[in-house]
Amino acid sequence: MATLGLVEYEDASPEVRAVYDEIMAVRKVDWINNFWKALARDPKTLRRTWESIREIMGPGELDPLTKELIYVAVSATNQCGYCIASHTAAARKAGMTDGMFGELMAVVGMANETNRLASGYQVEIDQKFLPQ
Amino acid sequence: MATLGLVEYEDASPEVRAVYDEIMAVRKVDWINNFWKALARDPKTLRRTWESIREIMGPGELDPLTKELIYVAVSATNQCGYCIASHTAAARKAGMTDGMFGELMAVVGMANETNRLASGYQVEIDQKFLPQ
Amino acid sequence: MATLGLVEYEDASPEVRAVYDEIMAVRKVDWINNFWKALARDPKTLRRTWESIREIMGPGELDPLTKELIYVAVSATNQCGYCIASHTAAARKAGMTDGMFGELMAVVGMANETNRLASGYQVEIDQKFLPQ
Amino acid sequence: MATLGLVEYEDASPEVRAVYDEIMAVRKVDWINNFWKALARDPKTLRRTWESIREIMGPGELDPLTKELIYVAVSATNQCGYCIASHTAAARKAGMTDGMFGELMAVVGMANETNRLASGYQVEIDQKFLPQ
Amino acid sequence: MATLGLVEYEDASPEVRAVYDEIMAVRKVDWINNFWKALARDPKTLRRTWESIREIMGPGELDPLTKELIYVAVSATNQCGYCIASHTAAARKAGMTDGMFGELMAVVGMANETNRLASGYQVEIDQKFLPQ
Amino acid sequence: MATLGLVEYEDASPEVRAVYDEIMAVRKVDWINNFWKALARDPKTLRRTWESIREIMGPGELDPLTKELIYVAVSATNQCGYCIASHTAAARKAGMTDGMFGELMAVVGMANETNRLASGYQVEIDQKFLPQ
Repeated sequence: MATLGLVEYEDASPEVRAVYDEIMAVRKVDWINNFWKALARDPKTLRRTWESIREIMGPGELDPLTKELIYVAVSATNQCGYCIASHTAAARKAGMTDGMFGELMAVVGMANETNRLASGYQVEIDQKFLPQ
Repeated sequence: MATLGLVEYEDASPEVRAVYDEIMAVRKVDWINNFWKALARDPKTLRRTWESIREIMGPGELDPLTKELIYVAVSATNQCGYCIASHTAAARKAGMTDGMFGELMAVVGMANETNRLASGYQVEIDQKFLPQ
Repeated sequence: MATLGLVEYEDASPEVRAVYDEIMAVRKVDWINNFWKALARDPKTLRRTWESIREIMGPGELDPLTKELIYVAVSATNQCGYCIASHTAAARKAGMTDGMFGELMAVVGMANETNRLASGYQVEIDQKFLPQ
Repeated sequence: MATLGLVEYEDASPEVRAVYDEIMAVRKVDWINNFWKALARDPKTLRRTWESIREIMGPGELDPLTKELIYVAVSATNQCGYCIASHTAAARKAGMTDGMFGELMAVVGMANETNRLASGYQVEIDQKFLPQ
Repeated sequence: MATLGLVEYEDASPEVRAVYDEIMAVRKVDWINNFWKALARDPKTLRRTWESIREIMGPGELDPLTKELIYVAVSATNQCGYCIASHTAAARKAGMTDGMFGELMAVVGMANETNRLASGYQVEIDQKFLPQ
Repeated sequence: MATLGLVEYEDASPEVRAVYDEIMAVRKVDWINNFWKALARDPKTLRRTWESIREIMGPGELDPLTKELIYVAVSATNQCGYCIASHTAAARKAGMTDGMFGELMAVVGMANETNRLASGYQVEIDQKFLPQ
């Protein structure tokens, strides 16, 4: 296996395969993406990351689409090429329309702009915004 | 006016007051927060920022609450204290429950984690995630 | 000296005093700010950082004011409260007017916005922008 | 049009074409770069972003070259590959020499370094740096 | 409980208390810091975060001090005031000397500097650095 | 030489060659990587950066491997592709095993996650974490 290689299903240990199987079952897909194949080089990180994501991205008070939109927002803010590509695809699968994508980007851009205006102008937090 | 001062309504030029009035009318509030009072030192930036935010945060395919959640997600990622405080307050006003806030933070934290796992493991983008 | 304390001139070693003296002479000031007093806990870092800054911020093809504007731009982008405060003060001393500050912030905000639009829309670099 | 496609002039709506025409006229160029072609998927964002940039990057107290230098400084800090490439090209067109580029990078690097020294050493803001 | 309040031990549910007890036992301390008291507002995030941290920061091929140094390095890079303070304290407890802290900061500063020089100069990755 | 070109040894000035020679001697390698070849366009930055890195990464209270791990941690946090690749290679050369790499990434990911939980939950710094 290459130093920075990907662990393919056929080369994976039973421990890694078990996670791969669970990912495919939960997500109803028949393939494993490169992110998981890379993490599989460290089976403990693979399992822990998958279990956290399954718990966090699963059903809750926020619907799956909203969660994916938030994921894309963070990834674009951090300039993570892989995550932007994979979570934009996931968001589309979860129902994101072209219109929603445009609005998502507009909010992400504006938030990144005003974050710097607020810090650059050294704006103090209003009393009304402090937790009561 | 102090170098990094805030422009209060009573000291504001007609141009700045017009923006303040519009902010209060559109948002149905009777006060102006420090962010706008700081920007008012540069009336052109005040007007342009307000008009962009009004257009972006207004009604669209994404509802106002979702937009505020995205705003908080970006602000927490960027460590902008002012924006976290003000947009968390705005999100609560728009209907964010304690449960939603907990899930929002969980997704933001996880996205920030996996963004670095993806870059640190030097994961290549899967063909299936590339725009067709 | 406190763990995270500041090294005052009267408590400083001759090595640290020599740097303090040089800072005050080059900058034509009669006090040392907290940044240098904190770095003085590690005299090697104090000396190396000062020598780099003296070389970088000194006269060159870019004038001192332009260099301070760039410093503020980076500091606001990174949300570094100390650096925003100290370099905004330095920029004013170097001649930054209120109007220049407003334009600086406007460019910083816009650049932070379009950086995320470019990454979020996954825009490929135009051939014409590649180094020839 | 591809999901993450670029809107070419010949495929563009009259609304998008109007912005493209204006960009080429104001910038005195005969082509549209990929950033605008990507934004054109959301005509509202295209128009708003262009109008903001035209206002911000236009003549003011800071000259066009200084504004482009600031743009590059922010883009390098954020690791935005597209923006580094496009705004480095724009800065060169506006008169940035090799020497200026070297000094710009030196300041950007140093600011990113001292931003972290200031935060890591937990340096408190000097009273003298606070707005009066 | 305040909106952004802290969950004190005496007000905590049995589920939260169990995590608090485990934190104090594993870390051999008799108090709970504000980070955990804040997360306790969302017991699921409290438990998941604690279990991940316990697994990650526990004994392995890297010793506990090295892991705390890495934690401080990331926190200083991200300008997270809380995390810098808490993990600098944890690193000292794990054996970080003043000399080590100085070297840690020097590396963090330099890495943040060269990260931007590499991106700003648009340096291509050498073949020899690509995974084989 | 191309605008964004690399300065090869055979085309380098005596001043640049002197730095190249020193890099190869100190690091016991027989080639120069693209980072230095790019910086060589500005010989002053080349020399200053090399001298800082030689001082910082050299022997001290932290061993070379620990310093490289910290370098990778910062680079992954900042999404700097070049620096991740080059310093991961350097860390392996300094003795980083697959197991250490896995733990390094786990800590980096977790720190990036909890940095945002701490800011998003607006956690105040505990008195006990403040410098005494």
